[in-house]
Amino acid sequence: MSIQYSNVSIHESVQHGEHVTVVMPSNVYGCTLGNHVFVGPFCEIQKNVTIGDYTRIQSHSFICELVTIGSHCFIGHGVMFINDTFSEGGPARGNKNLWKKTTIGNHVSIGSNATILPVDICDGTVIGAGAVVTKSITVPGVYAGNPAKLLRKL
Amino acid sequence: MSIQYSNVSIHESVQHGEHVTVVMPSNVYGCTLGNHVFVGPFCEIQKNVTIGDYTRIQSHSFICELVTIGSHCFIGHGVMFINDTFSEGGPARGNKNLWKKTTIGNHVSIGSNATILPVDICDGTVIGAGAVVTKSITVPGVYAGNPAKLLRKL
Amino acid sequence: MSIQYSNVSIHESVQHGEHVTVVMPSNVYGCTLGNHVFVGPFCEIQKNVTIGDYTRIQSHSFICELVTIGSHCFIGHGVMFINDTFSEGGPARGNKNLWKKTTIGNHVSIGSNATILPVDICDGTVIGAGAVVTKSITVPGVYAGNPAKLLRKL
Repeated sequence: MSIQYSNVSIHESVQHGEHVTVVMPSNVYGCTLGNHVFVGPFCEIQKNVTIGDYTRIQSHSFICELVTIGSHCFIGHGVMFINDTFSEGGPARGNKNLWKKTTIGNHVSIGSNATILPVDICDGTVIGAGAVVTKSITVPGVYAGNPAKLLRKL
Repeated sequence: MSIQYSNVSIHESVQHGEHVTVVMPSNVYGCTLGNHVFVGPFCEIQKNVTIGDYTRIQSHSFICELVTIGSHCFIGHGVMFINDTFSEGGPARGNKNLWKKTTIGNHVSIGSNATILPVDICDGTVIGAGAVVTKSITVPGVYAGNPAKLLRKL
Repeated sequence: MSIQYSNVSIHESVQHGEHVTVVMPSNVYGCTLGNHVFVGPFCEIQKNVTIGDYTRIQSHSFICELVTIGSHCFIGHGVMFINDTFSEGGPARGNKNLWKKTTIGNHVSIGSNATILPVDICDGTVIGAGAVVTKSITVPGVYAGNPAKLLRKL
């Protein structure tokens, strides 16, 4: 038996507004991309993700199911979103009842190589490069570190 | 003189069991993949790596020579394994005597954007997203942070 | 209106020396690559970047505008460089007056999954895997952590 393989693509299941650009290769399927959304190369955006108008997803980022991102956001390079927190001591293995959602507001900027656990992040927040965000953020500010902490309010 | 280039591929040197899936583009060569192994897009798996049955390697991950991963493991997105610790103050530059090995047990889950220095990790361990694992782990538990520390035993 | 897409490439605008190798897919444009430079797969190197002789850029790394890297350097896997520090509370959105430059000396080694803010790093420095470098480094040594701190001098 041979190895089975598939190829990344912009799947026809993607719903999108006007002036949307994707740099290939990227794997984009079943999601909704607003007007003027940009997606850099080497990204994966999974089904049921929604990305608002004028938001940019930079190269090497991974956006999983149950993530909603507002408008005018900037998602840096190599940013990883997470919906499975291994809450039962291991991966959910397709039991989506164990997955948790992430909601990113508008005008949120997330630095490169950041890691975003399932949280809510309020409008106007800045996440520093390399940060690991483990808790929801309700006060606009600059957050950085592992785990991410407030550096200063905005 | 032009730039020389090669393309990623699933090389014929890969040994594998049944029901193995790879999403392309990924660069997979000289390794052994057990039954039901899944490899997401934008991965590289180097020669002499062994990956056990039912283990999943998610997108954007890099698995270098001298890494052995057990069965039923989950390697998240953007996970980087390391065999060269710059022990002489710089890269080994092909002097493989300086490389060190990594052994991951069975039922180990590694969160996205984690970085794994050359270590042993025991069965059933959970590594948090964004963790940097610098020491071997012999007690099953949840480990997170940079450097990774025990959060709780399992 | 359809989604617009482009494909990664080695653009003809790249200036380069002899014995340069790039593994595709990578997105390389408008930069200068010295002799014997190696670029692994899934990389992006933007315009106006300069990379010195014998320097290796490993897979999954992103090197942005305003970065200069010396000779005999080793840039690990998944290393992200940054030129926009969101200094005004959000991305520069093309206002390059807000971007800052990074200068990496010679014989510098940067570990996988490291994140490099706009800084200068002196010759012979070693940056540990997963480190987040937020300040310039003027004393050769081994630096690691988030934020990166001196572990030992070299």
